[in-house]
Amino acid sequence: MTAGRTGRKRPTISDVAKRAGVTKGAVSRALNNGTGVSSGTRERIRQAAVELGWSPSYAARALNGKPLGTIGLVVRRPPEILDFDAFFASFLSGIESVLSGEEHATVIRFVPDAHTEAATYERLFNDRFVDGFLVTDLRVDDERPAMLRRLGAPAVVVGAPEGSSDFPTITNDSEDAIRGLVRHLVAGGHRRIAHVQGDPGMLHALQRRWHWEKAARDAGVDPGPVEYGSYTIEGGAQATERILALPERPTAIFYGSDLMAIGGYSVLGDAGLSIPGDMAVAGFDDIALASFTSPPLTTVRSKHRALGSAGARLLLDMLKGQEAPASTTLGGELQIRESAG
Amino acid sequence: MTAGRTGRKRPTISDVAKRAGVTKGAVSRALNNGTGVSSGTRERIRQAAVELGWSPSYAARALNGKPLGTIGLVVRRPPEILDFDAFFASFLSGIESVLSGEEHATVIRFVPDAHTEAATYERLFNDRFVDGFLVTDLRVDDERPAMLRRLGAPAVVVGAPEGSSDFPTITNDSEDAIRGLVRHLVAGGHRRIAHVQGDPGMLHALQRRWHWEKAARDAGVDPGPVEYGSYTIEGGAQATERILALPERPTAIFYGSDLMAIGGYSVLGDAGLSIPGDMAVAGFDDIALASFTSPPLTTVRSKHRALGSAGARLLLDMLKGQEAPASTTLGGELQIRESAG
Repeated sequence: MTAGRTGRKRPTISDVAKRAGVTKGAVSRALNNGTGVSSGTRERIRQAAVELGWSPSYAARALNGKPLGTIGLVVRRPPEILDFDAFFASFLSGIESVLSGEEHATVIRFVPDAHTEAATYERLFNDRFVDGFLVTDLRVDDERPAMLRRLGAPAVVVGAPEGSSDFPTITNDSEDAIRGLVRHLVAGGHRRIAHVQGDPGMLHALQRRWHWEKAARDAGVDPGPVEYGSYTIEGGAQATERILALPERPTAIFYGSDLMAIGGYSVLGDAGLSIPGDMAVAGFDDIALASFTSPPLTTVRSKHRALGSAGARLLLDMLKGQEAPASTTLGGELQIRESAG
Repeated sequence: MTAGRTGRKRPTISDVAKRAGVTKGAVSRALNNGTGVSSGTRERIRQAAVELGWSPSYAARALNGKPLGTIGLVVRRPPEILDFDAFFASFLSGIESVLSGEEHATVIRFVPDAHTEAATYERLFNDRFVDGFLVTDLRVDDERPAMLRRLGAPAVVVGAPEGSSDFPTITNDSEDAIRGLVRHLVAGGHRRIAHVQGDPGMLHALQRRWHWEKAARDAGVDPGPVEYGSYTIEGGAQATERILALPERPTAIFYGSDLMAIGGYSVLGDAGLSIPGDMAVAGFDDIALASFTSPPLTTVRSKHRALGSAGARLLLDMLKGQEAPASTTLGGELQIRESAG
C-alpha cells in the first residue's frame, strides 16, 4: 500500500482511474463506501491502486469532505537549536500562524545526517504524510532541490539558493540593511569593524559576511578580522575573547546573530569595556530580547516569522493549484538602538 | 474511509478480522498485495474495514516494514509563543531529541479556540495522522483528558493535573526549589517578596504562585503583592512598573518566568535601581540566557527539555505496548547566581 519508490511521480486518482479503466467518479464512489460500483470494478480499482502504490488514505482525506493537509519540515540540525537558535522557533511560529487558520498541520522531523535526511523526505512524501515541503537552512552545494524534483514533491525554498531554483523561493535580503549598518558605524568614526560569523557551512552565514565585506569596502574601510561563533551565545562569547586578544583591537563588532552579540556583551562587560563607548556592537535577527539588553542592541531585523508565514502561504497556494511567483524577497531592516553609537 | 466518529475506540486489525470472519494473518496478506487470499475474502475484509471505519493506510504503515510513527501536539495558544515563551521551543526540542533517533515525526497544530482544539484532536487521531498525543499546558478544569479517553487515544499528560489522571503524567515539581529560593531571600533579610505571576488560567502559573505563598508563610513572612505578567517580557516589565508604584515597595521580586524577569531588569535599570542591591530578582525556567544577563539571574531551573524527552519516550513505550508508570516527577533545581543576593 506504500509507494516507497524513488524517482516516480506520486500517482493521482486519475492515474488509478486510467489504469483500472474507469472514471475518476467511479474511483471516488468505490472509496466512499462502494455504492453504485460493482464488486468487480471495486476490485479492479483496488488492484490498480496497489500496483501504482497509490494510498487510499490520501485519497480518502481528499474525498471525505475537507482534507486535513500537512506541510513537512525536515531539519538537519541538532534538535537543541530550537532552544538556542533565534531562527527556528520564530520561523515555525510564522508557519503555524498561517496553518492555524487553514486545515493544515505541520509534520516536523529532526534528522542527524544526510542519509536520514534524504530517506525522511522520501518517506514523508511517498507515504503521504506530507503534501509539500518548506526547505530551509540551505547549504553550500545543497542536494535537496534535485532530490525533491525527483520525488515530484511540491516545495518552497526559504533562503537565497545559489544560482537559479526550480522551486519558488522566499528570500530574506539583508544586503541594504547591513550596508546601512556599516555606514552608520563608519559615520561614527569606526575604521576597524570585526565580524563574528555563524556556521561557515550555512549560506546565510556566508551571505551576511559577504554583505558586510562589500559594504565595508564600498565605504572605503578594510573589512576587519573575522571570527566564528557558531550562532550560539557561548560561541559569540568565545569569538569576542579572541577578538579582544588581537594585537590591533577593532572598535566595533558586527555579530551574525543577536545571540552571539549577547554572548559578546557578557565578555565585554567582564573585561570592563563599555558599550558602545569602548566597543560598538551590532547584531543580526532582532530577537524579542534585543530591545531589552543593556544597552538596547542595534541590529538588523530579519523577518524570520514573515519568512515562515510567507513560505507556508505560498506552499498552500501551490497545493491548491495556484500559480506561485518564482521568487519573493523580504527586505531586512536596520534597527538603530544604542549599542553601536 | 475515515472513521470520524467520536466516542468510539479506534478499531484494530483484530476487529476487522473478527468482523470479516477471517484471521489477522489473512487481513495482513490481503493488505500486502492480496497473495494467498481469495478475491471474495479480500472483498469481505475491505467491507469490514469500511464498516468499522478502519484505515488501511494506518495498517499499511504497520504492516509494510518499519512504520513511521507520529506523535501529535495540539497547542491552544497563539503561535507567537514559540517565539516568546521559553517553554515550547525547549519542550519541542526535547521531544525531537528522542524522535530523531526513532522512526517518528511530530505533527503540530496550533489552534485558536476550544472548538477547533477538540475537532483537531479528534481528526488527527481518527484520520490516523497521529498515533498518540502529548498533552501539555493543562488548564483549570481541563476537558481534554475526558475527550481523549472517549477517542481511545494513547496520551501522556505533561504537567501536574488536578486530582488523579487516567493517563500517565510527567510532572515538573518545583515546590522544593521555590522553597529553597524563598529561604535564600529570607536569609538575605528580605521580608517583603513580591511575585509576578504568568497567565492566571494556566495551572503551572498557579502552582508556582502557590509554592511561593506556602514557602513564604512557612518561613514566617507574609506573601508580598502579586502582579500578573502574562509570561512575556513586556508583561514582566509592566508588572514591575506597577510593583514599583506600590506605597510599600517590596525588596525582592520572584518572577514566574525568566522572560518576565528580564522585562523587570529593563524597568529596574531605567528606574536607576541596582540588582540585587536595591531590588533582588529571581526568575523561573533557567533559559539559556539567564547566565548571560547582567547580573546573572538567580532562577529555578525547570526541565523543559527533559519534560519533552521523557514525555516522548513514555508515549513511544506505550505505543509499543509497554506498561507505563502512572506518574513520573522531575524536580526543579535552584540556580543561585547574583541577582538575588
